Amino acid sequence: MNVTLPDGKRLELPAHATPNDVAQAIGPGLAKAALGATINGELSDLMTEIPENAAVSIVTKRDTDAIKLMRHTLAHVMAQAVIDFFVAEGHERSEVRMGVGPVIENGFYYDFDVPRSLHPEDLEKIEARMREIIKAKLPLRKYELSRSEALERYRAINDPYKLELIEDLPADEAITFYEQGGAEGFTDLCRGPHVPNTGLIPPHFKLMSIAGAYWRGDENRPMLQRIYGVAFLSKEELNKHLWMLEEAKKRDHRKLGKELDIYTLDEEVGPGLPLWLPRGAVLIEELEELAKEMERKASYERVRTPHLSKEGLFLKSGHLPYYAESMYPPMDLEGIRYYVKPMNCPFHHKIFASRPRSYRDLPIRYAEYGTCYRYEKSGELFGLMRVRSMQMNDAHIYCSEEQFEQEFLAVIEMYQQYFEVFGIDNYVMRLSTHGKDGLGKKYVDNERLWLKTEEMVRNAMTNGGVPFVEVADEAAFYGPKIDVQIYSAIGREFTLATNQVDFAVPERFELSYINEHNEAETPLCIHRAPLSTHERMIGFLIEHFAGDFPLWLAPEQVRIVPIADRHIEYADSLRQQLIAAGLRAEIDTRGERMNAKVRDAELYKVPYIVIVGDKEVEAGSVSFRSRQEPDKNAVPVAAFIKHLQEHAKARSLKIPALI
Amino acid sequence: MNVTLPDGKRLELPAHATPNDVAQAIGPGLAKAALGATINGELSDLMTEIPENAAVSIVTKRDTDAIKLMRHTLAHVMAQAVIDFFVAEGHERSEVRMGVGPVIENGFYYDFDVPRSLHPEDLEKIEARMREIIKAKLPLRKYELSRSEALERYRAINDPYKLELIEDLPADEAITFYEQGGAEGFTDLCRGPHVPNTGLIPPHFKLMSIAGAYWRGDENRPMLQRIYGVAFLSKEELNKHLWMLEEAKKRDHRKLGKELDIYTLDEEVGPGLPLWLPRGAVLIEELEELAKEMERKASYERVRTPHLSKEGLFLKSGHLPYYAESMYPPMDLEGIRYYVKPMNCPFHHKIFASRPRSYRDLPIRYAEYGTCYRYEKSGELFGLMRVRSMQMNDAHIYCSEEQFEQEFLAVIEMYQQYFEVFGIDNYVMRLSTHGKDGLGKKYVDNERLWLKTEEMVRNAMTNGGVPFVEVADEAAFYGPKIDVQIYSAIGREFTLATNQVDFAVPERFELSYINEHNEAETPLCIHRAPLSTHERMIGFLIEHFAGDFPLWLAPEQVRIVPIADRHIEYADSLRQQLIAAGLRAEIDTRGERMNAKVRDAELYKVPYIVIVGDKEVEAGSVSFRSRQEPDKNAVPVAAFIKHLQEHAKARSLKIPALI
Repeated sequence: MNVTLPDGKRLELPAHATPNDVAQAIGPGLAKAALGATINGELSDLMTEIPENAAVSIVTKRDTDAIKLMRHTLAHVMAQAVIDFFVAEGHERSEVRMGVGPVIENGFYYDFDVPRSLHPEDLEKIEARMREIIKAKLPLRKYELSRSEALERYRAINDPYKLELIEDLPADEAITFYEQGGAEGFTDLCRGPHVPNTGLIPPHFKLMSIAGAYWRGDENRPMLQRIYGVAFLSKEELNKHLWMLEEAKKRDHRKLGKELDIYTLDEEVGPGLPLWLPRGAVLIEELEELAKEMERKASYERVRTPHLSKEGLFLKSGHLPYYAESMYPPMDLEGIRYYVKPMNCPFHHKIFASRPRSYRDLPIRYAEYGTCYRYEKSGELFGLMRVRSMQMNDAHIYCSEEQFEQEFLAVIEMYQQYFEVFGIDNYVMRLSTHGKDGLGKKYVDNERLWLKTEEMVRNAMTNGGVPFVEVADEAAFYGPKIDVQIYSAIGREFTLATNQVDFAVPERFELSYINEHNEAETPLCIHRAPLSTHERMIGFLIEHFAGDFPLWLAPEQVRIVPIADRHIEYADSLRQQLIAAGLRAEIDTRGERMNAKVRDAELYKVPYIVIVGDKEVEAGSVSFRSRQEPDKNAVPVAAFIKHLQEHAKARSLKIPALI
Repeated sequence: MNVTLPDGKRLELPAHATPNDVAQAIGPGLAKAALGATINGELSDLMTEIPENAAVSIVTKRDTDAIKLMRHTLAHVMAQAVIDFFVAEGHERSEVRMGVGPVIENGFYYDFDVPRSLHPEDLEKIEARMREIIKAKLPLRKYELSRSEALERYRAINDPYKLELIEDLPADEAITFYEQGGAEGFTDLCRGPHVPNTGLIPPHFKLMSIAGAYWRGDENRPMLQRIYGVAFLSKEELNKHLWMLEEAKKRDHRKLGKELDIYTLDEEVGPGLPLWLPRGAVLIEELEELAKEMERKASYERVRTPHLSKEGLFLKSGHLPYYAESMYPPMDLEGIRYYVKPMNCPFHHKIFASRPRSYRDLPIRYAEYGTCYRYEKSGELFGLMRVRSMQMNDAHIYCSEEQFEQEFLAVIEMYQQYFEVFGIDNYVMRLSTHGKDGLGKKYVDNERLWLKTEEMVRNAMTNGGVPFVEVADEAAFYGPKIDVQIYSAIGREFTLATNQVDFAVPERFELSYINEHNEAETPLCIHRAPLSTHERMIGFLIEHFAGDFPLWLAPEQVRIVPIADRHIEYADSLRQQLIAAGLRAEIDTRGERMNAKVRDAELYKVPYIVIVGDKEVEAGSVSFRSRQEPDKNAVPVAAFIKHLQEHAKARSLKIPALI
């Protein structure tokens, strides 16, 4: 048989050859470094038979995919260690059963059905056993069984999980197993791929946590215990990841949201319905102010629509019945069902339709800060990240096909402007296209329009020089979309902005405009929400800035600390001047010591703490401590105010020191 | 018997004397001018017997109350004319039956049960007949019947309406009748008072309209036909009133709301749920901007709360069950009932309660632009004046008793500042107090606190030098309130602002703060909404300004009209400069003639129309036509922009001409 190597050379090998044979044929050095391979571009392992005329490339630890093989094998090593752990506790080996154990971002997990609840301290022991298994350098072996043999194996040990997995496999799929350390070691039903020997796994891994997980995600089936682990190729990467997690804990928006008085959740109001405290309301309103300014310059028009509507509107938009389970249930009024809105679009379509439109009116860009309500299961709610009330900087752009490219790009560019304001320099744009199989199901059934609009988006991005990756089968119901994944200052990923093409719904709403040839034509609609929901955006910003907001966003920009009661009058007049200048300033008149007051202001992460004593009163000046520039004394009040005003207005992230 | 006259003199009269006898005794001139009287301060007529030792004052047409007597008699004259009208048509006199016919603001009405539907053209004939009855100078006579005699009279003619009215009269009440023109004329069961002769009614009246009205306002009872009339003492007053009605029709917010593209109602969204078009959204956001600015200066803090909540919150607040019929029906989610909010207060209380409060934190002032939803019957919805979705500039102030007066007055003063901005110079403040009978029913059952808080409000208003009138039995459930009635530029009355004391609900929410003596104390709460709902406020402003908004409010501030296509480029750069300067400018690039474009801009009531031709392009200048200052040519662009910016920023009502 023949294989093609990455350099284009062809290699002649005996029948049933594996990538291991390929590596051996190339040379012993490569054979030693080999961890896996790609066969026709797909990640595979050294033990897999190569089909005729395949392109084969050997994977070593220099390849980014290598870590996936290691993580997968680590899941098996963990499973073996868990069995050993319970056997050591005196249990039967057959009392330990397993669900699935896949590779995930940064690591792996495995779901176990074991004789008792696992505790965090168990993880240390399991991890220690894993390191022994790695040290033992157990070789892995891959083999295939017939369906009846495979079923027989698990029937013999009465394992319902693996039996169900096998039964669900398509009839024509090979049923493969991976064995490590021989029959005495560990064998698992598995598609692979794996490294060929446990000794090839680097020691830079850590078991992180235990969580409950329903078998196959179904809450009516047994709950298994899932152990999560992380693993990296280098110690540095592992440490960086652990630091990020540690930092993420410190920056947790739920923790800081409480400490900084940003929002509160109230059981009596309801889950997922945050109440925004004054400091949180400042954040939202500053975001809105920013968006208004940007949208005004980009010739958006603002509209306002109610939070509820008759059922008919959502039937027309297609939200009902398809989206009903994500909506709040109906209210029955005068025999008609009303729903709170899960999205703003149908209302904007109605405004578009409220009078005749001409090609001269296009593009029309309607922006709204609509609050939408969606039903998320109680168990899935999470701080500000998963909520039921969603404040949105939403907009819909109605345009002709000729205008599309420019409009779409303008939206993308607006995203980039936002990212610059927030100092987000790490982001990925993802173009989600339709999947052919979903046409008429997940996707509007019009392949021609799908291909056409996808091409339009691709061209817009390419012509605009905006890098993007493409993902099939993740589009919206009504058209392709660009999602933006951004990374916070500590490298955690958030999906925020979305920019979607809609070639379907305008027709359902019978939207039209009269074109140059006096014919009615249906506009395209672009749905966009660059700041995601305010809830999620603020959750992100809290983490991104660790609550240390730039001056323009800071809920309290200046805290004035009078040293003694005799300085309160001056402090108060200073506050009045700051307020009049459009700045947010508070004054701490408590009878506490100055240092205690300064510490309290620091807990609130107030950018400027102004200390007022005899000297300042006498000179009519301020002395400040700042989180964003060097401390300074004896600054004239007017200069101080102007300095702050300018930098708040510029929305700059760092403030150049006052000269 | 004795009576006391206004000058303090006492007059000796025979028993059973009437005010007519008093007037005669004073002199024949007064007797001739006399229209009625007040007896012990209460409006009465000349035919009523005076009790012993009463204070009597004769009413002539110089007294403001005189018109009430005339209007009441006019209702009787109209009833007589309606009978004559149907008799002339060949009907039996007994086929015309009547409900009630009271005096109302500006006029009177009477409800009729007549053989056929009345048409507008009938009104002319009825009015002509009324003028004949007046000319006939029919004397009025008042007399009393026993209950059985009175019932017998109406049983004889089988009149269910008057029979029901008599049966509902208290047993000890005298049953009086007024007869005009003797037995051949017209007699009615009536409490009076009336003028003594139809000839004393001035001719300055007009029958206005016919409307259906359920007997006693009950939709399950027969519908009568109501005729409305207006009447004044002078021709000038009548004309002014008719002008106001005519003007109100022209300024009708529903008509202008459509013509100026301010809002739209959509059957598919639902009744009473306006969609705000871009021009309307500008109005709302400018109002919000104004409010934010004023509230920032007054140290309010802004909060944001969801539009819905679990049932429990509204049970605690007392909205459920007492207010349930004004709320949207519940949504049933995970076995819990959720309601959209009819008011913001419970949410603000929750924010207050979200952490411990000290006397040092008070007053706390939470402001929110919350949209509330209330159920109004479909038949009662009216444009923007009666809606189901209400955007509100709402706030709640939590303070101690000592702080109350200052806080309450500050709110009143803020109202006055708003009125100045909008040029509202005609308004009345009304203090609504509790009614003793409603304690424990309409009102929280704590008379001591009612009297105390009413006195606090009274003192605040008096000490602040704010004039007010007092109305008993119109308070809110939880405390006294000040309502403000304002008058539009054409003199129509609107009830907008409200400022309410709440001494009850903070306790239900267990709100408390730690006072100076380290004891928990319940704060008072002031509910205030100076701009009413945005819907009603904008409805008012449309009428008040006839859609001709001051520059700062105008949805489109500048319309640029290029004379020919070659001027578009310049026009466009001009627009960019205006937009960059924060102004709202559009450009009309259609191929229409200049005059057509100018006319269209005028229909939209755009304050500045800038015409751009060769001269302007060459000189880099603008020529404008303005609705608010003299037209001007050859104005340098920078000067024009600065002029507009300054006046928009100042929110001035009139713009001084550009020098």
